Amino acid sequence: LPEPIPVAVVGASGYTGAELVRLLLSHAGVRIAAVTAGKRAGEKLHDVFPQFRGLCDAALEAVDAQALARRARVAFLALPHGESAALARDLLADGLLVLDLSADLRLHDAAEHQQWYGQDAAPELRARAVYGLPELHRDRLRDACLVAVPGCYPTATLLALAPLVRGGLISTEGLVVDAKSGVSGAGRNPAPHTHYPEAAEGVRAYGVAGHRHTPEIEQELSEIASRPVRVTFTPHLLPMNRGMLATCYGRANAPAEKLRAALLEAYRDERFVEVAERPPDSAHLRGSNRAHVFATVDARTGQAVAMAAIDNLVKGASGQAVQCMNLALGFPEDEGLRGAGVFP
Amino acid sequence: LPEPIPVAVVGASGYTGAELVRLLLSHAGVRIAAVTAGKRAGEKLHDVFPQFRGLCDAALEAVDAQALARRARVAFLALPHGESAALARDLLADGLLVLDLSADLRLHDAAEHQQWYGQDAAPELRARAVYGLPELHRDRLRDACLVAVPGCYPTATLLALAPLVRGGLISTEGLVVDAKSGVSGAGRNPAPHTHYPEAAEGVRAYGVAGHRHTPEIEQELSEIASRPVRVTFTPHLLPMNRGMLATCYGRANAPAEKLRAALLEAYRDERFVEVAERPPDSAHLRGSNRAHVFATVDARTGQAVAMAAIDNLVKGASGQAVQCMNLALGFPEDEGLRGAGVFP
Amino acid sequence: LPEPIPVAVVGASGYTGAELVRLLLSHAGVRIAAVTAGKRAGEKLHDVFPQFRGLCDAALEAVDAQALARRARVAFLALPHGESAALARDLLADGLLVLDLSADLRLHDAAEHQQWYGQDAAPELRARAVYGLPELHRDRLRDACLVAVPGCYPTATLLALAPLVRGGLISTEGLVVDAKSGVSGAGRNPAPHTHYPEAAEGVRAYGVAGHRHTPEIEQELSEIASRPVRVTFTPHLLPMNRGMLATCYGRANAPAEKLRAALLEAYRDERFVEVAERPPDSAHLRGSNRAHVFATVDARTGQAVAMAAIDNLVKGASGQAVQCMNLALGFPEDEGLRGAGVFP
Amino acid sequence: LPEPIPVAVVGASGYTGAELVRLLLSHAGVRIAAVTAGKRAGEKLHDVFPQFRGLCDAALEAVDAQALARRARVAFLALPHGESAALARDLLADGLLVLDLSADLRLHDAAEHQQWYGQDAAPELRARAVYGLPELHRDRLRDACLVAVPGCYPTATLLALAPLVRGGLISTEGLVVDAKSGVSGAGRNPAPHTHYPEAAEGVRAYGVAGHRHTPEIEQELSEIASRPVRVTFTPHLLPMNRGMLATCYGRANAPAEKLRAALLEAYRDERFVEVAERPPDSAHLRGSNRAHVFATVDARTGQAVAMAAIDNLVKGASGQAVQCMNLALGFPEDEGLRGAGVFP
Repeated sequence: LPEPIPVAVVGASGYTGAELVRLLLSHAGVRIAAVTAGKRAGEKLHDVFPQFRGLCDAALEAVDAQALARRARVAFLALPHGESAALARDLLADGLLVLDLSADLRLHDAAEHQQWYGQDAAPELRARAVYGLPELHRDRLRDACLVAVPGCYPTATLLALAPLVRGGLISTEGLVVDAKSGVSGAGRNPAPHTHYPEAAEGVRAYGVAGHRHTPEIEQELSEIASRPVRVTFTPHLLPMNRGMLATCYGRANAPAEKLRAALLEAYRDERFVEVAERPPDSAHLRGSNRAHVFATVDARTGQAVAMAAIDNLVKGASGQAVQCMNLALGFPEDEGLRGAGVFP
Repeated sequence: LPEPIPVAVVGASGYTGAELVRLLLSHAGVRIAAVTAGKRAGEKLHDVFPQFRGLCDAALEAVDAQALARRARVAFLALPHGESAALARDLLADGLLVLDLSADLRLHDAAEHQQWYGQDAAPELRARAVYGLPELHRDRLRDACLVAVPGCYPTATLLALAPLVRGGLISTEGLVVDAKSGVSGAGRNPAPHTHYPEAAEGVRAYGVAGHRHTPEIEQELSEIASRPVRVTFTPHLLPMNRGMLATCYGRANAPAEKLRAALLEAYRDERFVEVAERPPDSAHLRGSNRAHVFATVDARTGQAVAMAAIDNLVKGASGQAVQCMNLALGFPEDEGLRGAGVFP
Repeated sequence: LPEPIPVAVVGASGYTGAELVRLLLSHAGVRIAAVTAGKRAGEKLHDVFPQFRGLCDAALEAVDAQALARRARVAFLALPHGESAALARDLLADGLLVLDLSADLRLHDAAEHQQWYGQDAAPELRARAVYGLPELHRDRLRDACLVAVPGCYPTATLLALAPLVRGGLISTEGLVVDAKSGVSGAGRNPAPHTHYPEAAEGVRAYGVAGHRHTPEIEQELSEIASRPVRVTFTPHLLPMNRGMLATCYGRANAPAEKLRAALLEAYRDERFVEVAERPPDSAHLRGSNRAHVFATVDARTGQAVAMAAIDNLVKGASGQAVQCMNLALGFPEDEGLRGAGVFP
Repeated sequence: LPEPIPVAVVGASGYTGAELVRLLLSHAGVRIAAVTAGKRAGEKLHDVFPQFRGLCDAALEAVDAQALARRARVAFLALPHGESAALARDLLADGLLVLDLSADLRLHDAAEHQQWYGQDAAPELRARAVYGLPELHRDRLRDACLVAVPGCYPTATLLALAPLVRGGLISTEGLVVDAKSGVSGAGRNPAPHTHYPEAAEGVRAYGVAGHRHTPEIEQELSEIASRPVRVTFTPHLLPMNRGMLATCYGRANAPAEKLRAALLEAYRDERFVEVAERPPDSAHLRGSNRAHVFATVDARTGQAVAMAAIDNLVKGASGQAVQCMNLALGFPEDEGLRGAGVFP
């Protein structure tokens, strides 16, 4: 057997970091060579995340690009946006494959990035980064050395809409994306709106007409449509840990069966995307890298309704990052990602 | 003090029936004269709903129109659709005020009713029934003797959209309503999709392009707009007991401040509707008859986004029924309905 | 009608404060004259708790004992322990009825207080405070001017055990209390263990062999038993907003029917305590000041099993405080507290 | 590589059946040769459990012992009690390794079985069955051909108590087990008490002084103690999908550090049991075959408090069954069971 490749998880005290560790522990081709954290550096990972007791004895280290470069050939950056670009630059220079889960490198257009994020730590890197949605950019990911792993909302939205936009089956004027997410998407830092008694037993929208995942969705749909596409994107916070559902609306240019056929055609050879006969339930994807997509047309109104359900922490973040690594390193695309959803 | 008016709750073994009892117990002008049930007739109400132990000693009776007519002057019918029309006819003939929480009498148009419900037990009653949304039809409710209490989804949707449609501030072409509901809306009968492990920790759409609340929404919006209005309506089931949020989308004909002003103007004198500055959270309405509405415009796309949050069992059903009774009998409109939301 | 009595809610930006406001708004004999907060002073209460929009227009004020004394005749102190004793002293001196929801004044014994809380801001006040569990100390509450409102765990535990200990039906050696609480009991300040993704979908004990509610339970049981009683008390955090269940174990000195009879006898004339035939469900008490108690004996092992379910924020805190006020001021004991549980 | 061993999952339309499939799909040494169901025979497994779309294309078959015996060498029986013994007999006769997840074969004593289950389909089989808790009976499992997989509550309870009872560190008189379970333990058939609105946001005990898992716990503890041991066992239903916590109480015969040392010693070489420094949280075990145990002594009262947290569907059922199969067939004990808990 070949030697397992050493990988580093930067930001392992957060939820996407922990999810990377969980998935990588089951990956036959890699070993976890380093896990890092900020404030909790010095602690054992399993003290910060007790699910790893007996499975991973690593201690969290402070981030040190040189040390990482010596010990790892791959680095996953699970950091807040604004914090990963500089580190990515250093690690790239040392020849590592870098998979950045932040938003720093996702937008190709510098002005767009500036407008939505108000800073730009790494304009030159952005040009080199491949947008890590394998179902759209598999070929470019095969020799990528820098991957901008998509956000959870764009992943779900694009899996639902991309085949319909590509086939001209849905109007790109007036697209509406109404998305629903579990609370883990907000990260591990306690905040008023994610305090259990505030988040349980209620639903609310947030980031209305201004959520930062909007330009990612538009960038990819525009590229597919070969013209500028705008979407009205409204995320909602739901009382559940994991899970995401994007419900997408737009004027249909074809009947339901054509939309469904387009999804089936697009995903026929995809390992992780299933076309469902009924509206998908995010619960069936919990803990898994898979997506369930669905499309129909409301014949009375002429509106297409397309949906995708994922686990926001897996296909919406860490699982997708591992999938991208698999492509870049030539592993089977589903290595470390074969687990079925943990239902119920 | 005047003698309290005797009221009957028909279907008190279900959730909307129990909610009627809870609200009516706090109503200064009525007393509960009878509670009925089907299979559980003969049991004490507080054995079926232990929250009433010590508060209501009534026994559930089998339904008997004549017995009810002798003992009550008001009847709330919390029955499945198809079961209430015949009873309503008898009780009306005996001079009772009837508030029907089923869908039997909501649609004015017989063909529409036939198409969506496939039967029609009481075409002649439907013409007499007032659609019980006080914020739209208060005057007609003041002397009503038969009220068709709206569905939960139409209530939330109409509270969000009516002022905007009335003012021409949103296009009536291409309206999309993406609604989210707690599980109590599905009633008390156990079913696979409402089994705890299936409903918890997940979200899914249902009734896509065919939910029976659609024609109610369209009927009322069409009346306001004075032309036929169609909506694409997609309800979603969320892992929470109570609570409903309708997120509505349509092309804006005016900037955000105009939409907001229209809501403020429409609801200035309304006791139960508040215009929120931020997207409302259904958790704040739990157990209350109030609604929180909100509207804005996504300036990038020109789409209006309007929302209303309610408790599906209160403003979406039983509370609204009590509100209608208050209007019909001349009680203060908020009698029995003054409770604030039980949060958290 | 007599003029409503002006009351102040000190600490109205927390959950017990908000619950006081909710209950007091429905109280016919009082009006809310002031609401205070710390960091959020200056904001409208309904901006901090949107459930009060349209129902309470008060602005949160900074705490000022003199200002409160001028405007209110009753003060509810919903403050963290250590913060209320000094204020209570001032308000008492000005003749107000003070109901303290903190732990500052609950323990009669100064050494006990010192041992568990490590400070003692008001030893002289503690002697004057009546322990506000009406089912145990109703007579003393009738002319109280200072009430130490019990903790939620002691309330549930004492309602289950007091009649059994009083009747000698359960051994006071080896008492075990295994208690379960919703997350709202932890207050409104976000913390890691109450972050939604950490608290949802799991259960854990905390404060094992050292929770500060232990000495309260022991104080009251010792007083009833006329000898020192110790309990092994283990609270657990459950994934729900509200609700508390105390499951209590001890060697039975009599068969099940005797235990049940003792509960029935003890609570025959109590407005808020019901003896259930089956193990009670905390869900039925949500939002209500009521308690459901139950006792049986495991005939195989000779162990008594006694339970009480309450809403931790109502009978376990704010509702009980209002009940104490009603007794002290001569209102009907259930004024403002007649609401049935909001179920489901 | 050796040919994978064909295994059958009987009862794959229930939760433990589905969990077996999930785990066996990740097992390198077996392949799923048949999945059976009752009413849903004929459907695809992934239509009954959509989490398997794209991962398992098997169709559910009606149960047929001869057909199973021809195609499989191992059978997991995930059937209601009373239904598996006869099938087990046939499959055993055909030489299959049988792992029975029902209660039919767990109790060694026929009279005990009769008393708690009121029937006895297979007295002769019970003598041959090994109680499948590897941490207690590993050696006997190595050459077992019939395994009675323990119940979820006994698993958690015995992992917490066995080392303490074995070491004489806890009195076997007056043992109390207060257990908490997620709703998935009740199976997949909808019922009133597991209807989402009834089970969410509340906690209640059930089966007080009479739950059928009691004699299993007593059988194993009695064997360890070499004298009859009785436990007072009270299970509680909690609003969560998965997860179980057993909190166990008994008079301590030694200080806390001795209890902790006994746990550490007992589980030093165990792959699936970790001794935690703090009370364990069931959330960390979700989806995993691991257990976290903890023990301390309340020095004030002399009571030992011992806990174990597991996932009721994994270590409490299907994972443990796979672990037993691994032992019986000589696979690495953790094959198919290496996954960390899916947290959050």
